[in-house]
Parts: sequence; C-alpha cells; structure tokens
Amino acid sequence: MRCTQLEEMLSAKIFFKCENFQEMGAFKIRGASNAIFSLSGEAVKNGVATHSSGNHGTAVALAAKRRGVPACVVMPENASALKKRTVAEYGAKIIGCESTMTGRETALARYVAATGAAVVHPYNDLAVMAGQGTVALELHEEVPDLEVILVPVGGGGLLSGTAVASRGLRPNCRIIGVEPLGADDAWRALKTGHIEALAHPDTIADGLRATLGPLPFAVIREQVDDIMRVSDKAIISAMRYVWERMKIIIEPSSAVVVAALREGLVEVKGRRVGVILTGGNVDLDHLPW
Amino acid sequence: MRCTQLEEMLSAKIFFKCENFQEMGAFKIRGASNAIFSLSGEAVKNGVATHSSGNHGTAVALAAKRRGVPACVVMPENASALKKRTVAEYGAKIIGCESTMTGRETALARYVAATGAAVVHPYNDLAVMAGQGTVALELHEEVPDLEVILVPVGGGGLLSGTAVASRGLRPNCRIIGVEPLGADDAWRALKTGHIEALAHPDTIADGLRATLGPLPFAVIREQVDDIMRVSDKAIISAMRYVWERMKIIIEPSSAVVVAALREGLVEVKGRRVGVILTGGNVDLDHLPW
Repeated sequence: MRCTQLEEMLSAKIFFKCENFQEMGAFKIRGASNAIFSLSGEAVKNGVATHSSGNHGTAVALAAKRRGVPACVVMPENASALKKRTVAEYGAKIIGCESTMTGRETALARYVAATGAAVVHPYNDLAVMAGQGTVALELHEEVPDLEVILVPVGGGGLLSGTAVASRGLRPNCRIIGVEPLGADDAWRALKTGHIEALAHPDTIADGLRATLGPLPFAVIREQVDDIMRVSDKAIISAMRYVWERMKIIIEPSSAVVVAALREGLVEVKGRRVGVILTGGNVDLDHLPW
Repeated sequence: MRCTQLEEMLSAKIFFKCENFQEMGAFKIRGASNAIFSLSGEAVKNGVATHSSGNHGTAVALAAKRRGVPACVVMPENASALKKRTVAEYGAKIIGCESTMTGRETALARYVAATGAAVVHPYNDLAVMAGQGTVALELHEEVPDLEVILVPVGGGGLLSGTAVASRGLRPNCRIIGVEPLGADDAWRALKTGHIEALAHPDTIADGLRATLGPLPFAVIREQVDDIMRVSDKAIISAMRYVWERMKIIIEPSSAVVVAALREGLVEVKGRRVGVILTGGNVDLDHLPW
C-alpha cells in the first residue's frame, strides 16, 4: 500500500508491506509455520510450546493445529485479552506468567520438563528467523530497487530475517530497525556489543517488549545499518495517523516504523523505502487515545 | 478484498470493493468530480454549494479546489467533528443547519439565493449518480460474473448508479440496497411507490440519514431488486467485525451491507457477491463500542 500524504510530507516513495492482512493478523505465522513443519515427527510427538505476548503464540497455536499436534503458549499477565482469546480459539493451552523475560522462560521450562514438548522460540530459532525473512523476500520481489527498509524490532526474528533476505537480494539496501524507547535493548546491544535484558520493558508496543535473542543479534550486529528509537507518544500518534489516513488497522508494534518516519529519524528524501507493518491485532475496547 | 471467515460462514464468494481506500476516504469524490467538472465555466463562476452530512461535502470541497472555484457546504449540526474538519481543510466554507432534510435545504437555498453558486446536490443529480456508478463499473470489470451486488442506500445516488452500470454490464446480477431501520425511507418508497421523508431519521450510519431523491428513485424503482433493512446494533457489530477480521476501517454507513450478510437477509449461498464498502471516515474519539 501507499500513502500519498506521507509520501508528500517526506518527498519519498514509501511502500508498505501489510502483514496486518496476513493470516491471523500478523507476520508471525510465517516463522511458526516454517519451524513447526520443519520439525521431525519424533520431535513433535509431545506437542510444541512457546512463550509469547500474543502474535507468535497465536501463530504457534494455528501452525500446530494444522500439523495436528498439541500446543501450549506461556503468556505474560499483561498480554492483551484479544490475543489470549485468539490463542485459546485455535485450541492451544495457555499458561500465565509474570510479565518479564525471566517469568516467561521459567514457566516455559517448567512445562517442557513436565511434558517433553518441543520449544518453538518466538525469535531465537533459525527456522523462525528464516520464516520471518519471507516478508522482505516478497517485498523485494514486489517492489524492486528499495533503498531503505524499516522493520520493527522486538526479539529480532523479523529484523534478522529481513537482513539476510535483503543482503542477498539487494546488498545496498539500508536496513533499519525501530524499537520503542521503553524497550530499547536492541539499540543498547548494538551500541555495547552485548545483549542486556531490560528488567521492566515499558511500552504500549506489546509485541516489542521481548529481549533480543542471541541468534538474531549475531545477524543484526553484522548486517543491520542502524536502530532507531521512538517514544510511546510518537507510536500512538503514528498508529492513529495510519488508521485515519490509510484506513487500515495496525497495532502499536507496527506503528514504530511509521513513527520513525514521521519523526524524521531516517534519511529517506528522494528514496524508495520499504516499510514492514507487522500486524493489526488490537483490542478495540482498549485504544490508546 | 476478501474475508475467508465470512466466506466460510456464508458458503459464498464475497468480493469487497473498498471505497474506504478511495481518495478522501469515500466513493463520493467520484460523483462530485463528475458533476463539478461537467459544469460550464459560466455555471461555476459564483462557485459551487451543497448540503451534506460529510463525505459528499468533503468531495465537493476537494473537487472545487481542483477546478479552482470556491465551495460552500451546508452541514447538519450532528455531522461528525472529523468530517467538518476535513471539509474546512480543503478550503470550503461551512454553514451549520438543523439536522433535518428541511433544515439542510432551507440553508442551502438561502446561500444560493445570496451568492448565485451552482448547486451540486449530493445525490439528486444525474452527473453525480453517473459518477457514483463508476464504483460498480470497476467492480464488474475487476470481478466478472457477479450474481448479487449489495449497496448501502441513503439518498440513492450510489444505488441508482450501481443499478445502471450493473444492468448494462451484467443484466442478471441481483441488485440489493441496504439501509438502516431508523432511516428506511428507501424501503418505504419502494413499497408504497412514493417518497416520504422521515421527520427524524435515527441511525448511527450518518451517511445514510438523507431522504431518497426523486431522480435516483426513478431508477431504483425500475432496476433494483430489493431493499433490506438492518438495526443499528447489527451495523455496529458488522463494523467491528470488519475492523477485527479484515483489519480495515469502515464507517457505520459502509457496515450496513456486511450487517445484511451476517444477519442472513440476502440469499448468497454458492453465489458470487459484490459488496460496496462506501467509506472509512470515522471519528476515532467516538467509536460506538
């Protein structure tokens, strides 16, 4: 999709890849499907399990249902009600946990020890990263000669997949990750060279609260040009802008990339810019304005 | 666009024509452009004027700006704040009026008498009706062999244009208008054979409060197969369904057609159905849920 007003404002050509229109409303079905269908029959005989604030959990639930194996999703207490409901609708078991990375991992480890389920990590998994990379693969096929590509970054699965796909197809395309100021562990990691989990990530972008994974980080530090940070205020404003102007529903985690453009954080003048809108699963009873 | 879940529910193929993605967020730019650019230089020398609860007013403002003539829009007091703001942004003068057909027409007549502006009626105008008909023209070109087409009906401009275009291209396609129960003057007119304005149309679908015009009615009574009515409750539920499932923003006036499908009012099983989503201009500060 395009947005005339935004293009005029930035004097650039902006091409949105709308993963909010993807099955189950987010790109996450790509990585989960690739991972779950790549596992051997022996590996999935006790089902699959993951932790997720929402979209990856939904994706694992759906992909597992399709493969015909049971799924369990560990979800933090502050996950949105809509996302919990959707995971349950696809038939997955839900286990609640504290809203921290440690809380998620402890609960998942306990479940896996008890059941022998195969873990499908939301991002620290090469099959998941490769699956998420198909977003950029398609975008480069659909829109040739992109000079910049903007990607939200949470755990880093999409950003690392985007980097690998883009470097292969379009080596000179700049790859920019965008994350919330309140969950800026990727920005810090790129600066210091090592990952440090934030004790209390604080942002409305619930899909981006996760800590960067070591596998994605190994790719990101080599291949990503920059990481930009945006405030929650800019995220909410960008989200509303997209709803009002483009008439499409995106969630706060998608809006970070639009926020970075509107805040002028990325040099795009005269360029062809790809923007990945990652999802549109919003709880309509709790809008941020 | 398509919606897998809705198609499975109805056992039909549903093709959405998304005029919410149209310039200025609604189909109305088609009729207003056709009308304003069809007028002679002499006819527009004192500008153009209209009355409208919103989208047609915005369309007239924009088309007049493009033709380089002044525009005035008479808007009822209960028109949405967003729509008033947008009309003003395009440089048109706004005159407030009572929220009735009489109130609108009186204020418009007074302005025209004082200025000599050319009236571009929102629907009771052959050039406007023809312009709106291009929605169906495109839909039939894009999706061959439609067997049913569903259209919201307010003043009847879009429905009459759809009927003329559809009868020409696809004579056996059933043409169904849908309107709110609280503004069912078109349904009544088709039943009794004459137009009777409702004293107090009462519906959330602000684009459909207008009374059927005589010119559209002359087409509709000959060419439209049926008119269905839906409650505001069903409209709100359908609007939310489209937001959640399709991730696109439609306004209540668009949602009437989806409501008719979900309520089972139209026989669509096994058929190819065209659905016109007329617009997506919603005041995000005042959502109906």
